[in-house]
Amino acid sequence: MRKGEATRGAILDHASRLARRVGLEGLSIGRLAEDLSLSKSGLFAHFRSKEALQIQVLETTAAQFVEIVVKPALAEPRGEPRLRSLFRRWLEWARSQKTPGGCLFVAAAVELDDKPGPVRRKLVQTQRDFLKLMANVCESGIGVGHFRSDVDPEQFAHDLYAVMLGYHHASRLLKDPAAEARAYAGFEGLLAAARPSRERARRRGRQA
Amino acid sequence: MRKGEATRGAILDHASRLARRVGLEGLSIGRLAEDLSLSKSGLFAHFRSKEALQIQVLETTAAQFVEIVVKPALAEPRGEPRLRSLFRRWLEWARSQKTPGGCLFVAAAVELDDKPGPVRRKLVQTQRDFLKLMANVCESGIGVGHFRSDVDPEQFAHDLYAVMLGYHHASRLLKDPAAEARAYAGFEGLLAAARPSRERARRRGRQA
Repeated sequence: MRKGEATRGAILDHASRLARRVGLEGLSIGRLAEDLSLSKSGLFAHFRSKEALQIQVLETTAAQFVEIVVKPALAEPRGEPRLRSLFRRWLEWARSQKTPGGCLFVAAAVELDDKPGPVRRKLVQTQRDFLKLMANVCESGIGVGHFRSDVDPEQFAHDLYAVMLGYHHASRLLKDPAAEARAYAGFEGLLAAARPSRERARRRGRQA
Repeated sequence: MRKGEATRGAILDHASRLARRVGLEGLSIGRLAEDLSLSKSGLFAHFRSKEALQIQVLETTAAQFVEIVVKPALAEPRGEPRLRSLFRRWLEWARSQKTPGGCLFVAAAVELDDKPGPVRRKLVQTQRDFLKLMANVCESGIGVGHFRSDVDPEQFAHDLYAVMLGYHHASRLLKDPAAEARAYAGFEGLLAAARPSRERARRRGRQA
């Protein structure tokens, strides 16, 4: 049983990398079998269908994201420290997905936006979960007084996601050497707009 | 000759729609011939290669974008009116690309980010041209005093592009009914941060 789990984990790890290279839609049990020199029937026993394989790849990648990005960030104090940690780790994650294809979620978002079905539903669910998490981090920042009480946490989460999509576009397509600096500047702009105005004025005075 | 041009235009129009449906990479002379019930050899005479076809599809779509979005916006007075017009028309364009696949440029950006070659180069060029245009619109807004002189026009263009990528993600993948309102809120946030601070304070006072 334990050996079976380990094998399954190793296969899913490989499948995640393959999906980043060929797209989630390009990922099939046949292709994976060829890539791993395993029998197609053995892999079918593990995953049963292409869709089930794709869904488990999304789940595996989401679980890695939670371990690497989300959990350590949530261990930081509420408000700006937690938000900064989340953003920094998220950016590191995006940068580390250098294997051709980049971040699986960003690629899959464009690949699947017009393909209804269980894989798309799983993707949408992981994205909504993460947006909700970002909104919660913003909300707890309001709770400790780091952000204004009239900041809309869902808008904040949406804007933060947009900053990251801008980073992907600038770094991966345009190969803009300033991509990371631009992403941080966008992030700081969101933070500045969310701070209580007295705090904002004080910080500006300090910087000047 | 004129008839040839018209035919070519009609074929490229169809090819652009097909590309939005099957992706720029899925667009081939064979597929296009099948779709239009034309002979493959006739289309080869027009376009010579798959890559040349893909490049002309990008050029056609970029030219449509300039006509529909850029030119009318540049006819508006400098500063906020021009920028607002550009953003509003751009959002209308994004919304109008409802055919499966959505905006060709956004889809192609993810599709081609790891595929070096002339098609990718053409895509990068159109994206850089548009970012430059947005930076120019921002710069002329500084010139007329609508934006602070220390606003970085390239950062502003990058941030504006990120707002639009966030809109695509929210509207196409998440089917978020608030996608457009979120995009406008993001845009207003960028404008607010770019305004001279006295103007910013005055407007806030007015809103309160």
